[in-house]
Amino acid sequence: MRDVVVIGAGMTKFGELWGQSIKDIFVEAALKAIEDAGVDHIDSMYVGAMSSGLFVGQEHLGAVMADYLGVNPIPATHVESACASGGAAFRQAFFEVASGASEIVLASGVEKMTDGADVTEVLATAADQEYEVYHGITFPGLYALIARAHMEQFGTTREQLAAVAVKNHRNGSKNPNAQFRNEVTVEQVMKSTMVADPLRLLDCSPVSDGAAAVIVASMDVAKKLKRNPIRVIASAQASDTIALHGRKTLTTLNSVVKAAEKAYKMADKKPKDMNLVEVHDCFTIAEIVATEDLGLFEKGKGGEAAANGWTSIECKMIPVNTSGGLKSKGHPVGATGIAQIIELYEQLNGTAGARQVPNAHVAMAQNMGGSGASCVIHILEVK
Amino acid sequence: MRDVVVIGAGMTKFGELWGQSIKDIFVEAALKAIEDAGVDHIDSMYVGAMSSGLFVGQEHLGAVMADYLGVNPIPATHVESACASGGAAFRQAFFEVASGASEIVLASGVEKMTDGADVTEVLATAADQEYEVYHGITFPGLYALIARAHMEQFGTTREQLAAVAVKNHRNGSKNPNAQFRNEVTVEQVMKSTMVADPLRLLDCSPVSDGAAAVIVASMDVAKKLKRNPIRVIASAQASDTIALHGRKTLTTLNSVVKAAEKAYKMADKKPKDMNLVEVHDCFTIAEIVATEDLGLFEKGKGGEAAANGWTSIECKMIPVNTSGGLKSKGHPVGATGIAQIIELYEQLNGTAGARQVPNAHVAMAQNMGGSGASCVIHILEVK
Repeated sequence: MRDVVVIGAGMTKFGELWGQSIKDIFVEAALKAIEDAGVDHIDSMYVGAMSSGLFVGQEHLGAVMADYLGVNPIPATHVESACASGGAAFRQAFFEVASGASEIVLASGVEKMTDGADVTEVLATAADQEYEVYHGITFPGLYALIARAHMEQFGTTREQLAAVAVKNHRNGSKNPNAQFRNEVTVEQVMKSTMVADPLRLLDCSPVSDGAAAVIVASMDVAKKLKRNPIRVIASAQASDTIALHGRKTLTTLNSVVKAAEKAYKMADKKPKDMNLVEVHDCFTIAEIVATEDLGLFEKGKGGEAAANGWTSIECKMIPVNTSGGLKSKGHPVGATGIAQIIELYEQLNGTAGARQVPNAHVAMAQNMGGSGASCVIHILEVK
Repeated sequence: MRDVVVIGAGMTKFGELWGQSIKDIFVEAALKAIEDAGVDHIDSMYVGAMSSGLFVGQEHLGAVMADYLGVNPIPATHVESACASGGAAFRQAFFEVASGASEIVLASGVEKMTDGADVTEVLATAADQEYEVYHGITFPGLYALIARAHMEQFGTTREQLAAVAVKNHRNGSKNPNAQFRNEVTVEQVMKSTMVADPLRLLDCSPVSDGAAAVIVASMDVAKKLKRNPIRVIASAQASDTIALHGRKTLTTLNSVVKAAEKAYKMADKKPKDMNLVEVHDCFTIAEIVATEDLGLFEKGKGGEAAANGWTSIECKMIPVNTSGGLKSKGHPVGATGIAQIIELYEQLNGTAGARQVPNAHVAMAQNMGGSGASCVIHILEVK
């Protein structure tokens, strides 16, 4: 398998982008990535999206986006793994370049969620329709079950959950592309509207529109273009039961554990080697569980770590979600996995501005689908 | 890029499978493929499907199917390129094995179309929602435009269109998995109900449920298992404008031309080297155009070739759609591309029974999305 690198990135602002269609935001992000990379063509492209069929009535998204980007007749394929669609699309671009089939591949993610569809209903199609959704549960409900179990088993507190939101809003306030750039306090989180006990409004990532794209290339291309080669040193993915009821425990996400094991092995790295990590904080509890399952903290200690500030940029222990995470940056579901890669790319390039983690050389992105039925992890390194 | 082979295949019968869910049919096909290959595990899996979200209200299809197949925690990803979803899923499995990342990958396709959704409306999401579908056109309408242009430009006749259906039903009558095993006459086709002038009911592929799966592996695995190594000697894909109005001509599908060019080059083969070809005959006109754009016949001569029997098994010039094609075998859209690969696999293995093409060594599958905005082509060879 040959070396694969990321040489360019671009994204739209995340938020309620009512003035732009799904095609508009994709093209904006893709053109920015192409310009950033300085390439004069792309060999093929992947589009990660969870459900353009249900959100905006358009399938065949690879071909649609290739057309509107003006890159026909290159291959263009849509990849879906619910909220891990972006990470999955990046992984397919990785395989294509690693195999030697292509030199320059655009990996992108996009979702337009505010155009009128019933978002909660559409998102629920990422869960088990027969055994979960039919009985009325929604994603806040599923993660509330996980949160309640974590609180029971490990003594995780409401304040600790809130600390995740506070930290991510603080980071997001420094991210010009973030949907929410306002800081919040623990008190505000704990007094926000109840959504699914114990999760409140400020524990939940928002409904967002947005697109993100990166250029994945061979090392040869990076050298020719004299780009700082940011290598993809691990690509790992794992699955778990689609429904929560099928699992041995609610407090460990096995797909995260398994994907992390594979990723660390492939990269020949350990959790402590990471300089920063982007995790899939669709809900505050998800960040706490992820930081444990990735081996950054002992099981049951994720809440304490968040409350103690060990995951903040300032603390420098292990900065988590320097971008603001899904919570503050926004969560256009198909775009999220690519936006995570973009944060890694900027941090490793030293271009993350006010969010910059000093001396960042190795960084990890953990993108998750459903209530953990899919997990895609990538580790990037710059020397 | 290392050698990639197909070592096993399995599919459900195609048709109206009201007694089985989308999960049931996927698992049936996948288990058959795994058993046929004689493998004791798979490293990862891809599921091609056009729109399980709109057809059955279930996204996250990779993870759902991995769960029901009982193969957690392996990576599982859903790939979509409208009716070329199966071919696109196979291509991703090809890249994953070619890159060296995995040894044994399941490539599958599935669609459950008869569970109550408005099929014409769902299929229309493969076309341009803003500029085509909004104005009322459907897929039979789009292909009728192509047929009318072909008739005008090349003198293609109604009888020639009918000849495609007659031949494919004859082939399908010999395929135990085909949805329709009845033969039809030119007269029956020409008197069948008008759908979109000049296309009649028997010019159209049916609405179908079905699943298909193949096991893609490295040559090392094939040798270890002492399997007849059927090599994937080309994988090519191309795109075109999503809407018909954006094209220079209606009578050539540029994605087919471009993907074929790449496929022949990669395989180092010419059209005349093919012993049989499966083409995407969603409508009779689509087979005629495809056989031309693949270089099997001169432009404008596809209709004559069909009427003269040059594409029949018996003629042995270039047997096209020995499986019965989409027309007779059925067209569960996401499964079609994989079912085409299965026909190649059986023919090259010499296990195609009454449909067997003698001395078949090289075969091609052409899978198409929308009105030709996507095309995926694979060439397989056995020595």
